Order: sequence, then C-alpha cells, then structure tokens
Amino acid sequence: MDYPVLSKISSPLDVKNLGEKELAKLCEEIRAKIMKTVSKNGGHLASNLGAVELTIALHRVFSSPKDAILFDVGHQCYAHKLLTGRFEKFDTLRVKDGLSGFMRPTESEHDPFVTGHSSNSISAAYGIYKAKKLLGQEGTAVAVIGDGALTGGMAYEGLNNAGASNSKFIVVLNDNKMSISKNVGALARTLTKMRNRSNYHTFKDKFSQFLLKIPFIGRKLNSIVYRIKEGFKNALYRSNLFSVLGYNYLGPVDGHDIEGIESILKIAKSYNRPSLVHIVTTKGKGYKFAESSPKNYHGVSPFDIDTGADNNKKLNFSSVAGNTLCDLAKTDGKICAITAAMTEGTGLENFAAEYKQRFFDVGIAEGHGVCFGAALASQGLKPYFAVYSSFLQRGFDQIIHDAAIGKFPLRLLVDRAGIVGEDGESHQGLFDVSYLTCIPEMTVFSPSSYKELEYRIKFTAENDGMFAIRYPRGCEKPCGDVGFTADFSVVDGKGKKAIVTYGRLFSEALEAKSETDINIVKLNKIYPLSNDLINTLKGFEEIYVFEETVKSGGIGEHLSALLLQNGFKGKFKICAVENEFIPQMDTTEALSICKLDAKGMVNEVNNG
Amino acid sequence: MDYPVLSKISSPLDVKNLGEKELAKLCEEIRAKIMKTVSKNGGHLASNLGAVELTIALHRVFSSPKDAILFDVGHQCYAHKLLTGRFEKFDTLRVKDGLSGFMRPTESEHDPFVTGHSSNSISAAYGIYKAKKLLGQEGTAVAVIGDGALTGGMAYEGLNNAGASNSKFIVVLNDNKMSISKNVGALARTLTKMRNRSNYHTFKDKFSQFLLKIPFIGRKLNSIVYRIKEGFKNALYRSNLFSVLGYNYLGPVDGHDIEGIESILKIAKSYNRPSLVHIVTTKGKGYKFAESSPKNYHGVSPFDIDTGADNNKKLNFSSVAGNTLCDLAKTDGKICAITAAMTEGTGLENFAAEYKQRFFDVGIAEGHGVCFGAALASQGLKPYFAVYSSFLQRGFDQIIHDAAIGKFPLRLLVDRAGIVGEDGESHQGLFDVSYLTCIPEMTVFSPSSYKELEYRIKFTAENDGMFAIRYPRGCEKPCGDVGFTADFSVVDGKGKKAIVTYGRLFSEALEAKSETDINIVKLNKIYPLSNDLINTLKGFEEIYVFEETVKSGGIGEHLSALLLQNGFKGKFKICAVENEFIPQMDTTEALSICKLDAKGMVNEVNNG
Repeated sequence: MDYPVLSKISSPLDVKNLGEKELAKLCEEIRAKIMKTVSKNGGHLASNLGAVELTIALHRVFSSPKDAILFDVGHQCYAHKLLTGRFEKFDTLRVKDGLSGFMRPTESEHDPFVTGHSSNSISAAYGIYKAKKLLGQEGTAVAVIGDGALTGGMAYEGLNNAGASNSKFIVVLNDNKMSISKNVGALARTLTKMRNRSNYHTFKDKFSQFLLKIPFIGRKLNSIVYRIKEGFKNALYRSNLFSVLGYNYLGPVDGHDIEGIESILKIAKSYNRPSLVHIVTTKGKGYKFAESSPKNYHGVSPFDIDTGADNNKKLNFSSVAGNTLCDLAKTDGKICAITAAMTEGTGLENFAAEYKQRFFDVGIAEGHGVCFGAALASQGLKPYFAVYSSFLQRGFDQIIHDAAIGKFPLRLLVDRAGIVGEDGESHQGLFDVSYLTCIPEMTVFSPSSYKELEYRIKFTAENDGMFAIRYPRGCEKPCGDVGFTADFSVVDGKGKKAIVTYGRLFSEALEAKSETDINIVKLNKIYPLSNDLINTLKGFEEIYVFEETVKSGGIGEHLSALLLQNGFKGKFKICAVENEFIPQMDTTEALSICKLDAKGMVNEVNNG
Repeated sequence: MDYPVLSKISSPLDVKNLGEKELAKLCEEIRAKIMKTVSKNGGHLASNLGAVELTIALHRVFSSPKDAILFDVGHQCYAHKLLTGRFEKFDTLRVKDGLSGFMRPTESEHDPFVTGHSSNSISAAYGIYKAKKLLGQEGTAVAVIGDGALTGGMAYEGLNNAGASNSKFIVVLNDNKMSISKNVGALARTLTKMRNRSNYHTFKDKFSQFLLKIPFIGRKLNSIVYRIKEGFKNALYRSNLFSVLGYNYLGPVDGHDIEGIESILKIAKSYNRPSLVHIVTTKGKGYKFAESSPKNYHGVSPFDIDTGADNNKKLNFSSVAGNTLCDLAKTDGKICAITAAMTEGTGLENFAAEYKQRFFDVGIAEGHGVCFGAALASQGLKPYFAVYSSFLQRGFDQIIHDAAIGKFPLRLLVDRAGIVGEDGESHQGLFDVSYLTCIPEMTVFSPSSYKELEYRIKFTAENDGMFAIRYPRGCEKPCGDVGFTADFSVVDGKGKKAIVTYGRLFSEALEAKSETDINIVKLNKIYPLSNDLINTLKGFEEIYVFEETVKSGGIGEHLSALLLQNGFKGKFKICAVENEFIPQMDTTEALSICKLDAKGMVNEVNNG
C-alpha cells in the first residue's frame, strides 16, 4: 500500500492513537499525497506543506468536530482534509464535484465554516465559540491564521473583539514569514523580531524531562512550571500586539516539532482566557524547490515533481496588464501601482522591480488599498490598484466613500473578473459588474483581448476619472480585428437579431456568429451606457445579452431598463449567471453549463 | 463683538500668533460657537467639544494646507473649520448648501480628504504623505483618530502599512475613552491601562523649565532630554500596539493643555520615522451636561443649551426595530443582537440591558460583525445585525463570502436606508438595494410602517434564510390600513396606470393617489420578485416605479428586465435617485428635489 499509515486514518480519533514513529511516517505520507495530488490537479502547495505537523498536533490536542478548528483562507487545510475522512476522495481536489481547496461545511462536519477570503478565521471561530457557549455545548474553537492573513483588518477586528471576552478561545498564528509573496508591513518586522528574540521553546530540557517522568502529576507539574516561566517572560519581554489585545501569548514554537506544538496547545487549552499560540513553520517544508522559492509554489498549476514547477509565466491578461502599466510608467511619472499582497498574481513583478518608489504592496488589506490609492489620486497622481474581482468586494465601501465622493480618480484593474475555475464559489468574479456599476462617477471597461486591455490602460492613463478595467483569469481567445476604441462596436451579420456581449464572451459570440451569422454588438465601455447604443439596439428585433456575471445588477438589466423606457418593443433575453454561486470546475465547463459559450449562444439564439 | 478672538482668525496663520491668554479665550469662544450652532442645527457635539485644544495645538505646530491634517470621521473637525476661514459660514453647518459636518475637500483647501465613515484617516493621510514625497512637495500629513475609530480594521491596515515606511508620518490618537457609546474591545482596556500606568507628561517640571530658559538651544536641549527619557520608558514599559506596528509612541498627554500638546507634537515632528502621539481628552469638555453623559451628546438634534438635550427618544423606526427584537428575545432564546458601536443609534439599548449574553457590540467593525454573526447563525442561532445602510457597505464582502456561500442565515436590520438628511453624501443609504439584491440567497424587505417593520422582524425570526429588512431614518408617515403580509399589495385606483413603490415612499404614493386615484402596487418583499407580481404588473398600461435608491441596480431595473423579457409593451418609467451623491439637506427637501415625494409623483404620472 502506498500510504500505510495515512490510509488507515478515517477520523481525527485515529491520529490521537499514533506513536512517535508512526507520526513521523504520517507526516511523510501526507506530504507525499499533497505533492502528488497538487502536481496533478494544481492547488496551494507551499503553505500546505508547511502546516503538516501543526495540523496533526491540533487534531491530537483538540477533538474535531466537537472543537471547531478553522484554517484561515484554507491554503493550509489539505492535511486537515486528509485526516478527517477525506483521504479516499483527495484525488478529486479542485475538480468538478470533488473536494474543495478551501474549507466547506457542505463537504465535512470537520469544516466548520467557509474559508477562501483571507482573515475571517478569528471572527468566525469566535462566533462559533460564543454560539457553543450560548447553546450549552461542549468544546472550543480554534482559529489557525497565517502571518499574511494577519495583515487584514478583519483579523484585527476579530482579535480586538474576542480578546476582551475572557473566554477560552484560541488563536494559532502559523507564522511562515510570507503572505503569498514575502509578507509586508510593520507587523511582519515585529514577528521577525519576536522570532529572533527568544529561542524556540523546547519542552525537552532536562528539568522538563525530569518533571514529565513523575507518574500521574508530571505533565501537570511541567505545565505549571512552564506557565510560571512564561508569566515572567511575558511581563518582561512579551508585551506585544497580542498581549495588548488581551491574549495570553505563548511561543514561538518550532512548527515542525509535533510534541512541542502539542505541549503548548495543551497549555493554551488550560487557560480560561484567550490565548495566542505562535508557531513558526517553513513554507514548502519537505519539498526542496518549494522551500527555496515558496512564492513560486504558493498556488501552482500541474507540474512535474522531480523537476519542479514551471515558473515561466505564460502571457495572460494579468501579465499584459502589469507590463502595460510598467511601460506607461516609463514616460508618465505619475503612474503608481498598488497591490494587496498579490504582486505576482496581478502581473506586477516588473513594475515592482523597476519603479520601487511608485509601487505599493499594502498587505492583504483591500479596504486600505482603495483608500490609500484614492489619497494618492487626490494629490494628482495616477494610482492603479490591481486586485482580484472577488477580493475587491472588501473595498466596496472605500470605492464609494474614499474615492467616488471626492471624485479622486483611482484606477481599478479588476483581475479574475468572471468565472475563475478551480478555486470555486469564494473566488468567482461574478459580482463586480453589479457592485461597480451602482457607484456614481464609475466608468467600467471590459476588454476582450490583450490589445484592447493595453489600449484601455493607456486610455485611462491619459484621461481623468474613476475607471475600472475588468478582465478574466487566463489567456485571450481570438477576437478577430474588431475595433474597440469606441464605446461599442458592431459586427454586422444577417437579419434583425443581435447578440450583445463584452469581455471574454465576445470570442464566444464570434464563434457563434460563424455558425449563425448573427449581428454582434460588442460593448467596450460597459458602463455607463450611451444613447447611441440604445438607438443602435432599437434597430434590432431580437436582442440576446450574454454576460459572465450574476444577472441581478448586470449590464443586461441596465440595458433592459433603458430599452423599456425608450419604447423598445422587440424580444429581449438576458443570459447570465443566475443569482447563485458557481462551484469549482474548469472555466470552459462552467461557461458551458451556464450556457455562455458559443454553443449555448447558438442554441439560445435559434431556439430561445 | 460676540467672538472677539475667534472672529479675527481668518486662517491658521493667525492662530500661531496668539499668546497664552488669547488662546484660552479662543478655546472658550470656539466652544461657545460650537454649542450655539449645534444647539440650533443639530450635529456632533461632545466629540467636538473635546478636541478644541488639540486642534489649536495642531494648527500652531503644523501649517495647513501645506501639512495635511485629517480628522477621522469628522466628529471632531468643527474647531478645525472655525480656524480655517469658515467662522462666518459656520451658522450654515449641516444646512443645505452650507458647511458639512465632516471634512469635504470641495469646501476648503484645509480639508484634504473626505471623511464621514470611521477609520479611514490613517490610510488617507499616508497616501497624501506618500504623494507629497513622490511629487517633491513640502509638508507632512497628520491623521487624528479617536480611540473608537481605532477599533476599525482599516485603521490597523493603515497603521501596519505606514508603520513599516520609515517616513515622517504622524498619527495623533485622540483618546476620549468612547466610541459613540463606551468604547469596547481589548484595545479599549489596553488604552485604559496605558493612561493609568504613566502620569500624563508634563513639560513644566523643574528640569524642563530650567532647560527651556537657556537661550537659543533650550528648546532643543529639552527635546533631546525628553527623547532620551522616552527611549528608556519605551524600552521598559511602552511596548504596545503602536510600537509593535513601527511607531515611535509618545504620550499620553493631557489633551486640554495646549502647550503640552504642542511640545509633544513638535517632538513627533522632529523624528524621521512614524510617530503616534497619544492625547487624552474629555468628551463633552466645557459643557456640564455633555461631560457627564457624553453618549447622549454625541450626535444631537437641536436643543436648549441651558437645560440640555432632550434624551427621551421619540418612537422611530430604529427604536421599533430594537424593541421588537427585544420582545421576541423573551420567548426565543436563539435571537441575538449585534451592533457595530451603535447601540443607541439602532435602538438596541433595551436589548443590551436585558439580554447581555446575547448582545454583542463588536466595535466599529462591520466586516467582523457580519462574519461573527454568520458564525453564530452557522450554529443554529438567529443573529440580527442592526447597522446603518451606508456603514454596512464595509461588510459587503462578508455578506457574500461568510454568510451567503455557506447559507448561514444572518439577519440584517438595515437602518438609515434611503435619504438620511443633514449628514449628507457619506451617510446616504442609497446603495443597499443594489448591493444586497445582487447577492444570492438574499431576501430583502422594505417596510413602510412600524407595524410592518414589527411584522417583518417576527417573520424573519420564524423563518429561515438570509433576510435584510431595510427602513429609513426617523418616523413613519400614515400608511392607511393596507395589508403587508403578502409579497406585494395592490391599492386599487382608476384606470390602467400604476405606481410601484416600497418603504417610506409608499405614504407619498398614498398622498399622490388622493389626488390622482392612481393604482398603487406596494412591494413588501422587494427582492426577489415573483411571477405573480410580473403578471399583475402586465395588467397595467403605464408603470411608474418610485424608489429611494440609486437607479443602477435598483428594483426598477430588476423589474424592467423581468417585464421586458415577459413581453410587457406598455409605458415604463423609473424614478429614483440618479447615480449621484445627494448632499446634505432636510430629508423632505431632498425627496422633493429628487421628485420622489407625492408632488413629484403626481407630476410624473400626469405629465411624464
């Protein structure tokens, strides 16, 4: 059998009964299984490899599901999945109908909450903890949060609220010294100091060894002595972010020493007030390529284990956006770039390297990113905030309050707009059209090709206003030589039917046209919509809007309001994502299921 | 002359030239002017009275507008307005076309950024600071933030980002020990400890006095000695939230001693890295009623100065919501209430007093509030988060990610939905319809009367789902005895024209009907919309939708999409707030200008 120890773990109970040697073997097997699966299916590698021992220790000290264990983001929950009855299904990771790459309560009773967006674990774990107490249930709640996720404001809001609660609530800081890229901000510096200042705690010193050998009361005695020592240290050296916020700070502890982690978790469990346990792990642990270059092994596509992942980025919408901005920055000294811990994901590596003074990684802090950018804009600079569509939801209020009210022309590069594929529900970019178009002052573009994306970025650099340019994850598909500089372009076909679409779906429409010769109206500026457009559309008898966004608040609805009020009497149909969450699956498949691909278009237009 | 010193201040330069006695007089006059104006116009009183000396000191040490001074929220910016050329216009505070109660760059070059929503000042000030450096401009940026606003995650995101910057950037913590109510959370406890641990700094001790008398170099020497002393203290006692985040911590200082504040601000200004200056003020300072009960004098309606404000709350939508929830909690042990530092504003005082275990004030932390609530719901409780419409924008991502994906039935009580009146642009509740209706799983109700609000809260307690109930600021207007338990109600009139509306505007429609006898379709559940409704509407020839929200993404657009796709051929008109920000003015006046009152409806229906 390939995984002699792991394959016998059917629940966390089984983990509690393993001896030291079996545990070491289990770690090996978990790493092997994660590497094999991720090298085939893609996924989050380095952070998961780093959290193996921590996860085992958590399941030995706590009893899931009675005790709720929440892994923030979920980039570190693969080992947890393998230990909670999902070993057999693990090959289906990130595949349609398979296991999610994040925590999903629908998947297992051991996943107590939805994760995916960073920094929610403390808020959620504290809510679960409080609910357990109110409902008279046993058990506690543990939030496991990375040092990267700790830069998010929500983590601090949760820490502050729970820290005042005098409750037996535990936060485990999995400090791997990285967000996705190298972690930024003052907190990162402080954590470095904390790691350096104190040697890692070891529970194997002679005095401990002696105490632990005393029958019955040895473990208890050791714990008491440890607590006294800690009390002194805390008073002297350990006044830190966490103690200030009401936590009993414990650590730092070597995150690859199961016994050490267990000891400190037990101590945390014995306190009647909130504890923060600081665990130091190595991102990518156990896989040489990932250890030496963790950021390249954060989220990966399928790769060869022996030779490592292919780090040569293919051209895609993100890299085109980042490089275009970098080119423009050469001649326009006012252009700045902002990222929320996503330099690589948003294609800003070159900009970051070449224009260090004008590049700002603000941490996983989208709200702050928007406000900071609006403030740069208020002084006459041209800031571009490159951010994933679903993460920008965290900056919604700031776009309204900090940018739009003052008419401070922040430019938004909205990456991963539309269907994103294997990351599933939490990462779909299906809301930005609705939430951006309701904001006064906002102009939204949705390029279909790299050339159009380049053009639009240049356009927004040369003009003044609050602009959002949204583009999909991945690569362009053929878009012919249709113009895109006007607000909309018409590709003439036969008859009085028209498809209205934008962004990635335009190439699908072209493909549909090759079969049906239908007219296509391609929206280049998708909001606001012009009178010219409405007049053009009134010339058709049947209009089919296809868009890769939820229906409610989408461009189809905006159009229908204008058409109806302007007396359009023809047939009108909106084909978009129904108001629901799209689960993980290949993007092509998702577009097909949503009937937004060429085939779906042809069907709709012929039979709809 | 009523204000002999104040009336002569035409710019901050004039403040720099005043002597000790004049300064004392200036403080008095500012307080008198603020009290007189707020007692007439309403506004934020207690926090503004507390920040008088601090504001004067800031303008003496820094040079606005070269140095940007940002007052977080703006509850403390009245003195700043009076000192920056707006004394003459101050009577127009919060009046249509008058001075804003918050910072508005359109109003003065001394207001460098938009404020209104809490906790944005550090992000904005840091952005302005960085922009100045990039543009080669002189000057610095100072963020003045209250201890309440510091509970917001965005403040922490900003602190973390700016703290690592090694820049000459200054945060002033105006610690008045209060959010709007008593400040909550672990940080509040820590600040209390910090205030108690060290006596306030005094710059009048004998050694300082001696040094300061030395010609030419005395001030410099004093500053050096002070810095050495501070260095020791910081190393020993002052490892705190701010030092951890990279700030040179200075304080605490008595916030009503201008000279003391000036001295410490000068020291902060002399450092080449970020400083945090801790100032302790008394909320309501100088007005006995406000000092003894600051929360009752936070935001006030017009009142009599001699007898104090009337604290007997009139019945309004907020109190009805809070008290209904309190009643329901008596028999339903699963009902919980959450507020983000708005216990009084959302009418939850009784609930907070009677059900302490089930009441959660999470701090000014809407994102955390939503996630925490969703977590309570995930365990089977029935949490209600009562929150203002415009502040809930901060929890938009969390409603999607933490509540909706997992189908965790958080209930939202969306207060101040629609036009809010004198607080203006930043506080209008004009976006919730758009941002809530694009979220899958969400059902939205918009009661028109107290009775309907009570009914809906009961309904959501007895049913399962993600519900939002939105209601306006203030009091109900007559709604007749029209039913509201179905999804929609029809008030029959003559002819084939119909008004479609909901919420507060229904009473306006009834008034319009008394003149025109038009049919009214009152939406009780405003989203999702039913087939029944569409079939009913198809029976009319002319449909006029009136709604108190931005047009884009509103119910009118959702309806038009359904009607157009279902073959409605009649006349259709959406009358809503154009996609723009509505400035401060009386609500009645705003509704009239937006043509959403009875008169506007009659005009539209007759001539539209």
